[in-house]
Amino acid sequence: MRQTGQMAKSKKNKSSDYSVADALRVPQGPVRVEDFAPGATPAYPGKGKDDAPDQMAEMAPELSDLQERLYAAGRDNEQAPRLLLMLQGLDTSGKGGVIRHAVGMVDPQGIDLTAFKVPTAEERAHHYLWRIRKALPGPGMIGIFDRSHYEDVLVVRVDELVAAEEIPKRFDEINAFEAELADQGITMIKCFLNVSRDEQKERLLERLADPEKYWKYNPGDVDVRNKWADYMDAYSDVLTRCNTEIAPWYVIPADKKWYRNWAVARLMVEHLRALDLGWPAADFDVESEIAQVNAS
Amino acid sequence: MRQTGQMAKSKKNKSSDYSVADALRVPQGPVRVEDFAPGATPAYPGKGKDDAPDQMAEMAPELSDLQERLYAAGRDNEQAPRLLLMLQGLDTSGKGGVIRHAVGMVDPQGIDLTAFKVPTAEERAHHYLWRIRKALPGPGMIGIFDRSHYEDVLVVRVDELVAAEEIPKRFDEINAFEAELADQGITMIKCFLNVSRDEQKERLLERLADPEKYWKYNPGDVDVRNKWADYMDAYSDVLTRCNTEIAPWYVIPADKKWYRNWAVARLMVEHLRALDLGWPAADFDVESEIAQVNAS
Repeated sequence: MRQTGQMAKSKKNKSSDYSVADALRVPQGPVRVEDFAPGATPAYPGKGKDDAPDQMAEMAPELSDLQERLYAAGRDNEQAPRLLLMLQGLDTSGKGGVIRHAVGMVDPQGIDLTAFKVPTAEERAHHYLWRIRKALPGPGMIGIFDRSHYEDVLVVRVDELVAAEEIPKRFDEINAFEAELADQGITMIKCFLNVSRDEQKERLLERLADPEKYWKYNPGDVDVRNKWADYMDAYSDVLTRCNTEIAPWYVIPADKKWYRNWAVARLMVEHLRALDLGWPAADFDVESEIAQVNAS
Repeated sequence: MRQTGQMAKSKKNKSSDYSVADALRVPQGPVRVEDFAPGATPAYPGKGKDDAPDQMAEMAPELSDLQERLYAAGRDNEQAPRLLLMLQGLDTSGKGGVIRHAVGMVDPQGIDLTAFKVPTAEERAHHYLWRIRKALPGPGMIGIFDRSHYEDVLVVRVDELVAAEEIPKRFDEINAFEAELADQGITMIKCFLNVSRDEQKERLLERLADPEKYWKYNPGDVDVRNKWADYMDAYSDVLTRCNTEIAPWYVIPADKKWYRNWAVARLMVEHLRALDLGWPAADFDVESEIAQVNAS
């Protein structure tokens, strides 16, 4: 066990010359979405789009190894750590693309993906955190939330589905909820995929220009786009009010798809490294088992 | 839509010079597991292990395209087809490896994975098909069963957890159940991962030789290994009695991991091709939406 723990550490040192988490973590205090550049590529170690596939391929074996350690830790241990990647962003910001390309690098057995849609009648009959609690990842798993409880202070606020005074109350409630998750050993990576208004227009028009992409287009997308300023206000408040030390926000520049996918994959790597996981010890007598297998 | 449908067909013709489904499908009538060679590589188009990564990489874009068509079809259409890949096999046969390497090629958003463990108290209180029905994939999804209802005529039979006369009754019940699934538009790919007794020994010893693999080893594996002949009888009966036209078995030679993973990925490709899916038509006025996006 000792030996493999050392291996994990040496890997960590080897490439810890840059930290995407440090580059993209939202600073404490009041911020506005407009403070962050959607076309930036902070901490990207390569040249640009052309070498992004190589950068992804280079990261893949370590991500795979780290995820397997997490998964192994979760076998037979309810107290094992868990990771929870939450993806928020407007239409076309690339939640689906991140899942396909970054989450897709990981063994499906270690992934627990939930897409939160418009709440069902049953979900609406409960507190808004009810369906979230039901979807939390188990020990050793990486949970992926495609949207999350933040919709309950975003679309719910913009479309005035609850009274305005309810929203600040929910910020406090969400902070308390996330503190509880952290206490349970859940490491949260909260990502706001920050696409610019111009790039969103391009992407919507692309979908409308290609019959193979019609299915990705929803007429409701334009309605949301026409409430852009309201969403920016709502997101700015979220990034300010729900940006705790224990569960900080990351703003992912999302105008360049290759950077967006790479950055989220890299955030997973960095957060998994920080768990510093070895391999579980044998809970059986190794020599005796070898003898039994040989005799079988 | 017409145009893209044609594209799907031309792709199909291009590489339909061989069929893994035809090569691995279990013939109707009485068979024995011992009839199938665990080290064979039927219909593999490359040279061997060395070019397996290339063969996988070559398949990836088509698998991705086909899965996206399936997923798109499932949006807003309850009647859309579904795929269900069932993985059965003894310990070390590679159910996990297939999920990691073959299923892992597919967008996680389109995968619905269930690992069936020893039934819980709640599950035991129900009919053995109850938990299976709950885990069936939704429209447009690819369900993956890591073990399945076949455990209820395999381990249950070998360990005599039900009366012997119950087993033939279950074969009929399973055939009726699967006919019902086929009626619902579920295409089943039932895979028996056929590992040899010698190769299993090697793999168990490998796990015991490497502290990074201890967590994969379970002392119960030797007990199962010591019932090898009973399991071969049980599997032979399953391959004979539950091998219907509508839901045939495939025996995947599993001694060569690279072939095993490639073959299952290829089976997914071939079954998805057979669905001959185009892209969903727009359910909105494209020109009007373009105008609205441009005006926004």
